[in-house]
Amino acid sequence: MTDAVAAIRRRQGLAEELFARLAAKTRVGPGIRRPSYSAEENFAHELCAEFAGRIGLEVTRDAAANTYMTLHGRDRSAPPILMGSHLDSVDQGGNYDGAAGVVAGLTVLAGLKDAGMAPARDLTAMAVRAEESAWFQVSYVGSRSALGALPADALDRARRIDTGRTLAEHIAECGGDPDRLREGPAHLDPKRLRAFLELHIEQGPTLQAKGLPIAIGAGIPGNFRHPRIVVEGAYGHVGYSREFRRDAVLAASSLVARLDALWAQTLAAGHNMTMTVGRFFTESAHHALTKVSGHVELSLDMRSTDPARVKALEGAFESIVREIATERGVEIDLGARTRAEAGVMDPAITLALREGATALGIDRMDLPSPAGHDAAAFAAAGVPTAMIFVRNDKGSHNPDERMEIADFMDGTSVLGWWLARNAA
Amino acid sequence: MTDAVAAIRRRQGLAEELFARLAAKTRVGPGIRRPSYSAEENFAHELCAEFAGRIGLEVTRDAAANTYMTLHGRDRSAPPILMGSHLDSVDQGGNYDGAAGVVAGLTVLAGLKDAGMAPARDLTAMAVRAEESAWFQVSYVGSRSALGALPADALDRARRIDTGRTLAEHIAECGGDPDRLREGPAHLDPKRLRAFLELHIEQGPTLQAKGLPIAIGAGIPGNFRHPRIVVEGAYGHVGYSREFRRDAVLAASSLVARLDALWAQTLAAGHNMTMTVGRFFTESAHHALTKVSGHVELSLDMRSTDPARVKALEGAFESIVREIATERGVEIDLGARTRAEAGVMDPAITLALREGATALGIDRMDLPSPAGHDAAAFAAAGVPTAMIFVRNDKGSHNPDERMEIADFMDGTSVLGWWLARNAA
Repeated sequence: MTDAVAAIRRRQGLAEELFARLAAKTRVGPGIRRPSYSAEENFAHELCAEFAGRIGLEVTRDAAANTYMTLHGRDRSAPPILMGSHLDSVDQGGNYDGAAGVVAGLTVLAGLKDAGMAPARDLTAMAVRAEESAWFQVSYVGSRSALGALPADALDRARRIDTGRTLAEHIAECGGDPDRLREGPAHLDPKRLRAFLELHIEQGPTLQAKGLPIAIGAGIPGNFRHPRIVVEGAYGHVGYSREFRRDAVLAASSLVARLDALWAQTLAAGHNMTMTVGRFFTESAHHALTKVSGHVELSLDMRSTDPARVKALEGAFESIVREIATERGVEIDLGARTRAEAGVMDPAITLALREGATALGIDRMDLPSPAGHDAAAFAAAGVPTAMIFVRNDKGSHNPDERMEIADFMDGTSVLGWWLARNAA
Repeated sequence: MTDAVAAIRRRQGLAEELFARLAAKTRVGPGIRRPSYSAEENFAHELCAEFAGRIGLEVTRDAAANTYMTLHGRDRSAPPILMGSHLDSVDQGGNYDGAAGVVAGLTVLAGLKDAGMAPARDLTAMAVRAEESAWFQVSYVGSRSALGALPADALDRARRIDTGRTLAEHIAECGGDPDRLREGPAHLDPKRLRAFLELHIEQGPTLQAKGLPIAIGAGIPGNFRHPRIVVEGAYGHVGYSREFRRDAVLAASSLVARLDALWAQTLAAGHNMTMTVGRFFTESAHHALTKVSGHVELSLDMRSTDPARVKALEGAFESIVREIATERGVEIDLGARTRAEAGVMDPAITLALREGATALGIDRMDLPSPAGHDAAAFAAAGVPTAMIFVRNDKGSHNPDERMEIADFMDGTSVLGWWLARNAA
């Protein structure tokens, strides 16, 4: 495996050239713009296919216009290993969010081929379409289409922010076949996939703060959300005594403080979660310095990579809400609740990636993903899935996103190490 | 004293007639409208003067057009006792906020005169002008003018909400003399007043909840206020981990929750206070369900009838702010702070009023005022001051304000009991 990894590392130039050409063609002002199913996304797919051809990989496309770049295995009927991510970006995004995972796959396959490896099974770098929900208000369009898991109504959804044309029209324009997507069968059979591995830049400060180049993904969070919780108390005079108050600000603040305490306890007990109250406001038409507030609205997102934890949090949240309503004499209307399933990482692959990093002398940590990724769609479909994160403390979806090529090559090496071990 | 109180009780009809005539002339739609220094307020003063004349009291006015209705004492140079309150109201207010205190004074004097009392000192029912800050954005105009304590710039302040004319012009139109107010001396010398007693409706639910007709005032709160506190954190992705958050909503909620805990502790320790966060809001242009909030604005009013407690609360508040800024990695800009002094009730008079209620078989409790009253201006000037509250759970400054005449007569009887004892 050491030879294979050394060969992959020698292909750093290919990765650098690919990133440079992607950026050169899709930069608009300070940021990157590669809308889902656009000319810019097409360009990115064609560029990757060009590099794949140069390496000697087979290039195929599916009905969603995803691109598969495959190093043939000795047994072509054995379940293949897929590596990949998406090539689209938000408007004024960065060059690496998504693309790093595709470039990593090509770099690994180029190195393995250089090392003369004839893999036991097909190894595929997959360039996924339309992961960003910004364009069609649907996420994971490419990966879910490939897996036959795209929601029925998604194809008819219009890209409201610019073209006004539907997802189906856009797919057809990019060489896909929306009718085949509607009628099935899916291009990929989840049960016939050995694994899906996704390398992605981190979108937070953890690796930078810890001084580490990479992390092994510890799961993609599921969540439950309440976009609009209404706490209804009673407006009153500023001097209103405590025992008679039905104070919406005190009730809502107490709710947030108790959820915050629940968060601290949950982490202390070794469980993963995050909690966000993004909106919290009294009524601008009625609130005043000298008036007890009778009405507060707030939002809530609670998430964990552990599906059982998400369920437990829902229960704990509801108990806290009931307690506060009683204690504070307010009514709390939770409004609509939405849920998203967690993307659970495959324990065996995750363990092996840790071993690979250790074997290669690369410092790493385990890191739950804060956000969703194509890997979530594969995990949801039952495919053994794992992720590798590469240091980037500038967030994503903005032009400041950044990545050191040395960190990228560390992550790509661990990816290659696992492939060399599992596909030899 | 029992004879005097019986005589006062027999004057219930006078009180009822006064309230009815006040309401008949100043009701507009469901509510009462008696702006400060207006034709409606003039009417109320003239009506009280008419009743005073009927009883045989001397009627005088001062440069602020306050009305004094006096039962002469045997020694006219002895420090007089004043009873009173204001006759103005907010727009769409109630008939009793203020007026009850003036009517109580007239009812007491009518009863004492009926009982043939020749008091040792002058006893005066004072009808005060312009207590409500709604009209000129200055409170206690009448009482502070009488005491020579009106802020220097108040007379030139315009009534912005309707006439646009200054307070000085309004005073002149109502028969007052603004130049005399500017040049002094004050009409009342605080050191030459035996006492000021104010009967006022309660503006909260306590007496109704306790099933009591009246309360003896336990003080008028002083306060400190922050109209605009800004908590500045950092916006971030919804999945941002706990250790790297600079979450303005969590910080601000924690601030409110700790102030709330401080409130509960302070009450448990037997101290008086209230705390109100009337405004609390994230930025509508930037906040989102899936974004950690980086900016919250909130207001704060903390108050206590105990001046030392207000000072202690300021210190405790500042400590909590420093702790939270450190713990949460946010900056907290407190902005401007305003302060109002507490109106401390005279212990001897307060004790005597309790004794009076007991002697008359009237159930009562002690109750700190939630709001300011003319009595605060007299207490601030060093006049021995006390208050009696009459049951009203409908708040004030709204048309739903109400008062039972039986409760009013209980409060008026206690007031009369004290006068009979101290002025015989």
